[in-house]
Amino acid sequence: MNKWQVRNKQFVNDPEAIMRSGNVFQIANGYMGCRGTLDEFGPGQLVGITLAGIFDRVGNAWREPVNAPNGGFTQVTLDGVHISALTTRIVSHQQNLNLQNAVFERETVFSARGKNLTLKSSRFLSADNPHLGVIQFSLVCDHAAKVVVRTGIDGNIWDLNGPHLLRLKPAKKGATLLVHGITNEAGRRVAVAEAIDASPGKETRATSGKKNLRVIRLNLEAGKICAFQKFFAVFTDNDRVQSPGDSAIDCARAAKTEGYSACLSHHNAAWAKKWARCDVEIAGDEEAQIALRYSIFQLLIVAPVNGSANSIPARALSGQVYKGAIFWDTEMFMFPFFLHTQPNKAAELMRYRIKTLAGARRKARTEGAGYRGAFYAWESQETGDEACTYFNIGDPVTGRDLRTYFRDKQVHISGDIAIAMWEHFKLTGDDSLLLAGGAEVILECARFYYSYAYLKPGKNRYEVLDVTGPDEYHERVHNNAFTSMTVRATFEIAMATVDYLRRKHPAALKALVKKIRIAGELPRFAEAAKLLYVPSPDRRTGVIEQFDGYFRLEDTTVEAVKARKIHPHEYLGGGQGVAVQTRIIKQADVVMMLNRFKDRFSMKVKRANWEYYEPRTEHGSSLSACAHALVAADIGKLDWAYQYFLKTAKIDLEAKYKVYVGTIFMGGSHPAANGGAWMTAVLGFGGLQVGTKQITLQPRLPKKWRALAFNLVHRGDWFNIKISRNTVTVGAEASNRSKHKWVVVGKTRFATPGARLAFNY
Amino acid sequence: MNKWQVRNKQFVNDPEAIMRSGNVFQIANGYMGCRGTLDEFGPGQLVGITLAGIFDRVGNAWREPVNAPNGGFTQVTLDGVHISALTTRIVSHQQNLNLQNAVFERETVFSARGKNLTLKSSRFLSADNPHLGVIQFSLVCDHAAKVVVRTGIDGNIWDLNGPHLLRLKPAKKGATLLVHGITNEAGRRVAVAEAIDASPGKETRATSGKKNLRVIRLNLEAGKICAFQKFFAVFTDNDRVQSPGDSAIDCARAAKTEGYSACLSHHNAAWAKKWARCDVEIAGDEEAQIALRYSIFQLLIVAPVNGSANSIPARALSGQVYKGAIFWDTEMFMFPFFLHTQPNKAAELMRYRIKTLAGARRKARTEGAGYRGAFYAWESQETGDEACTYFNIGDPVTGRDLRTYFRDKQVHISGDIAIAMWEHFKLTGDDSLLLAGGAEVILECARFYYSYAYLKPGKNRYEVLDVTGPDEYHERVHNNAFTSMTVRATFEIAMATVDYLRRKHPAALKALVKKIRIAGELPRFAEAAKLLYVPSPDRRTGVIEQFDGYFRLEDTTVEAVKARKIHPHEYLGGGQGVAVQTRIIKQADVVMMLNRFKDRFSMKVKRANWEYYEPRTEHGSSLSACAHALVAADIGKLDWAYQYFLKTAKIDLEAKYKVYVGTIFMGGSHPAANGGAWMTAVLGFGGLQVGTKQITLQPRLPKKWRALAFNLVHRGDWFNIKISRNTVTVGAEASNRSKHKWVVVGKTRFATPGARLAFNY
Repeated sequence: MNKWQVRNKQFVNDPEAIMRSGNVFQIANGYMGCRGTLDEFGPGQLVGITLAGIFDRVGNAWREPVNAPNGGFTQVTLDGVHISALTTRIVSHQQNLNLQNAVFERETVFSARGKNLTLKSSRFLSADNPHLGVIQFSLVCDHAAKVVVRTGIDGNIWDLNGPHLLRLKPAKKGATLLVHGITNEAGRRVAVAEAIDASPGKETRATSGKKNLRVIRLNLEAGKICAFQKFFAVFTDNDRVQSPGDSAIDCARAAKTEGYSACLSHHNAAWAKKWARCDVEIAGDEEAQIALRYSIFQLLIVAPVNGSANSIPARALSGQVYKGAIFWDTEMFMFPFFLHTQPNKAAELMRYRIKTLAGARRKARTEGAGYRGAFYAWESQETGDEACTYFNIGDPVTGRDLRTYFRDKQVHISGDIAIAMWEHFKLTGDDSLLLAGGAEVILECARFYYSYAYLKPGKNRYEVLDVTGPDEYHERVHNNAFTSMTVRATFEIAMATVDYLRRKHPAALKALVKKIRIAGELPRFAEAAKLLYVPSPDRRTGVIEQFDGYFRLEDTTVEAVKARKIHPHEYLGGGQGVAVQTRIIKQADVVMMLNRFKDRFSMKVKRANWEYYEPRTEHGSSLSACAHALVAADIGKLDWAYQYFLKTAKIDLEAKYKVYVGTIFMGGSHPAANGGAWMTAVLGFGGLQVGTKQITLQPRLPKKWRALAFNLVHRGDWFNIKISRNTVTVGAEASNRSKHKWVVVGKTRFATPGARLAFNY
Repeated sequence: MNKWQVRNKQFVNDPEAIMRSGNVFQIANGYMGCRGTLDEFGPGQLVGITLAGIFDRVGNAWREPVNAPNGGFTQVTLDGVHISALTTRIVSHQQNLNLQNAVFERETVFSARGKNLTLKSSRFLSADNPHLGVIQFSLVCDHAAKVVVRTGIDGNIWDLNGPHLLRLKPAKKGATLLVHGITNEAGRRVAVAEAIDASPGKETRATSGKKNLRVIRLNLEAGKICAFQKFFAVFTDNDRVQSPGDSAIDCARAAKTEGYSACLSHHNAAWAKKWARCDVEIAGDEEAQIALRYSIFQLLIVAPVNGSANSIPARALSGQVYKGAIFWDTEMFMFPFFLHTQPNKAAELMRYRIKTLAGARRKARTEGAGYRGAFYAWESQETGDEACTYFNIGDPVTGRDLRTYFRDKQVHISGDIAIAMWEHFKLTGDDSLLLAGGAEVILECARFYYSYAYLKPGKNRYEVLDVTGPDEYHERVHNNAFTSMTVRATFEIAMATVDYLRRKHPAALKALVKKIRIAGELPRFAEAAKLLYVPSPDRRTGVIEQFDGYFRLEDTTVEAVKARKIHPHEYLGGGQGVAVQTRIIKQADVVMMLNRFKDRFSMKVKRANWEYYEPRTEHGSSLSACAHALVAADIGKLDWAYQYFLKTAKIDLEAKYKVYVGTIFMGGSHPAANGGAWMTAVLGFGGLQVGTKQITLQPRLPKKWRALAFNLVHRGDWFNIKISRNTVTVGAEASNRSKHKWVVVGKTRFATPGARLAFNY
């Protein structure tokens, strides 16, 4: 078992298998994704070059990310027979995803006209040049044969709610092919250019059927390898270039000039750097090792391009599912991985929220009765305006769209962002993001909450009413513990931000307070932080009521609730969903709160709540398992934690997830679960907790694990941590600038640059 | 056309026709109802002697009023043939309800064995003795025949959720039959006794099949009339007698001794008194006259027995529908009729609310997050504890029970009661009810609202959140105009009550304040009355938004919404009802508010809102039409008002109402609509408005009406009002004690006792 490879030794000719395999074998480079489909495939097999950060809408359908024309297309004819995994007899097939450098390879032996044709390709999206895709393609036949290779750009684009590119034009400039279109809504230009290194035969051109192809005819000798390299480049108006078409052509040509080996070598160097910092090694558990590495890989391929101010959608770059929208998932489950290993990517995620602050302000103004401050979009795209509809799920029983309250009631999103913004500052010690809009985001989130909250006169407390917490099966509830704690933390963070700026950047604070006219409101935030009501643990049982009235709901089992379904895809929430009037919840809610605010609750309370809520959780969200794993690790339920960890870490590798909620297709990758897998391994089992004053490690390895090793960056300084069953070593890199306090298995030591601390436990 | 009779000249042998006819021809006397079924009918034809104020519950089914064994049962055999309208050929049939004295008569000519048998009966429930029912029964055959008459008490009881009477025992004491049982839940005794004046033949007894019968065999000569009179009496433990059985026997015997004519004469005398005060005469419109009179009749038959502290259920005494529960309908639409014509009955309705205050307190304490004060039951039975379930409507599409929020969110019920309580004092000038618990009710209702309301800090206003207004298709809304106005009025009334008691009954006030420990809260009520937010008319259009966000809902038509139904009985509200996300409303909501608070809004605003909401109202409640009629009359839309008036007034006479909501049977009479018909005629078209300082009349008669005449009692003094097309006369009774200020068609005059004021207009 190669712990750096994902391999498939057969091709299953079934649409769902092709869809799932396309997810598992996808590659990406932050700028674009490329699904793990075969060279000869088209939109029917969900070939998708999904672009980050550029969206389009057709009519009243959902706005979604733009898929680019496929510059990686190649299709072969053997003695007049069209060769395709879909129609040709396959003698053998193997495909491989190399996690080390995100290279996808396929090798298929086809049988046609009594001859065996071996087709190989290898592709990567450059980690060095985000616009560039590179493919090496080769053919060999066991008999002499007439072969026609059609290669170039396929303008037949898989879209969920397209077509997004209008006036698609095939062109050729010198030897370089170009397909150029403009988006339907905003008229943005999108261009894909393709160059090949050297034509292996006589080349003509064909532009029928939305394809812009080279047609290469050759008489292939038996056993003779025919190979060529393709270089395709994508540019859009979002790249702020004069002409995306010219830039794409220049890029493809330059890559061709540079050559395949050089491109791959730059790409590999970039990947080596990523893994050097981000890999987590597990000894004694291959299954966990490969699942975790695959999860980390998923995050690395979709980390936003530096300077893009893009974020990571809930289904990453695996397609247009969930509108390519960014949810709270990013801050909650992806952000920690980046913050601890690639803080510049964490900063990019935050820059996206700063960029979209205006959209969040618009949403606050126009949603409900009208609020102040920043109410971030539940589903956020380019501008931060809300992409989530009020009727976001279809009911397969009645055929009607269900009114859901993700959009207008899941107010914790703003606090999730404020908390992440503040965490970034705390862990990096870098206040530049705060000064570049981060503080404004935090204050506007607090302002939003103040305008949302009510004062309960007789009880002299603020309450947060009519919200939906993470458990989306219970919408429009009052005093949801998770939400209220998040709101309280936001007020506290707002206060802390003001305090910090007052001390360190008084002029900036003054300018900000003036700009957003918030002076009069600041004392109110302090009062609200103090008087905000959050449901507290029951004195006897320690259980926290998820929201007002939760304990009055029917107490039943997940199985009993599911047995009430009439239709297999029926949504359990919504107005009349079968879970709504029961205590069965969609995902960790109180449990997630106990993880986020782990220092504020006793082990006893955490244990009581985990044990109460776990059997009542349906895990209808991929975010649920890792929340349970994290708290289970925290309270020492290692077997449970391990099970939930595996469930989380294997979600995209095994690709057994459900692909329909109500009538909505939602297949694709799960970067939040991938982030949750990293969190469980490092923060959960590793017991890592990074504070402003110290870093603590309280390891609790699953039984099988002999050792766990990972890296950490904190305030610009790097550490490598190795945890075995009785020792912990912390190595501080020699290039570190500061001394750091470590509290490992209860023992306090200081790590000076270059130091190696060893602890027994 | 006899304007005092309802007549049917055929018998339609169809279960639904029998059900509807049973409603139309029902009689009642406040103590019990008796459906308009035939003597020989049983539970299959929905024979029901529904008792007021005694309830029972079997298992987990709905608690509902107890139906008594049928003491009016008589069935005849002709030459061995069982004679029944269900099975025997009918030569002719006629049934008649006399509105003057609530006597039901039937005459049926049956044909069997080649002979025609004429069967006549006439029945009334004594208005003089509430326990007593009296029936005159006669037979005549055109040929000699062997006739067997079985008459007595039928213990086969029609129940929706029974059986409620256990250990049903047939007995005979002397010549009097008795059936005695005890209720399932509370073990209360219910007894029915029956006596007949003189047996027309040889009498034996039969007690099979839950019947306790006399079997009278006779050889009937051709053309010879055989007649007898039945006297049945009902007593229960609620009557606070030592033995309901003995009391029933005594009562039946006494009536028999007194004789049919005397009983009828007392009964008629009582009815003559009712009509003398309560009739409304319309000249020029027979259709309206009979419909209105029938409506008034419906209210008169179900007015609670003096001293009972009972109220009137939503389906009156026509059966067990709606659990026999008392809703806000009573205060909103029945109470005004009694207040203006029979204040002692209005007081009884209020005594019911005083009696059930403890239940309302229990509900406040236990509902939702727990409240203070009195949260009256949405569906109220004996104790005032809530009879409405959280899942009150079944969904015929999915077969699931819908979570509805009638029970926990329709908080306006408490204010509806407080307002009625205060109106009673204002219009009668009698403060005894206030002192006997009425003031306590008012203060506890205000206290409930204070504990329900929230303060919106930035806006310095109170808001009433998460409620359901009269438009039940839109549940859980914020700042519902109707509810918030009602809450504000309740605070104002609480203040006025305290002011009044402070001036007139300081000791009583002191005792009350001490008893319910409310001293500290009173200043808060004053503040809340001042700072309570109620949506106000739009500056441009004058339209009041029914609740926060209503104007953002889909604007469509009633027809379009109905066309979306999948099942004909599908409920339009509830979690996913097809009206919920549209502006289509169930019944008048803002419009009803404009009627209740008619002095607080300009004609322009009333007109704008009526015109806006009327086409968006589905009238899914029988309360809707009269609300529209009242406001239409107020703003001078007389044609509209007239149409809605007729719709309201004819609802029970025509009995074309729907009988299913979701999966729930809800057929029966509509006393609220009946009250609404009176309100529209007198308060709407008559333009009567009674204040503490003056009585105003601003008539606006429908085109067809030549004249309108009615009576009014105000502060114990009586007036008769006659409105013609150009004159109004107000006659003050000679026995009046005070002088009253009248403002008629804008002219002010004082009516001294015995005066007759005439106004031209």
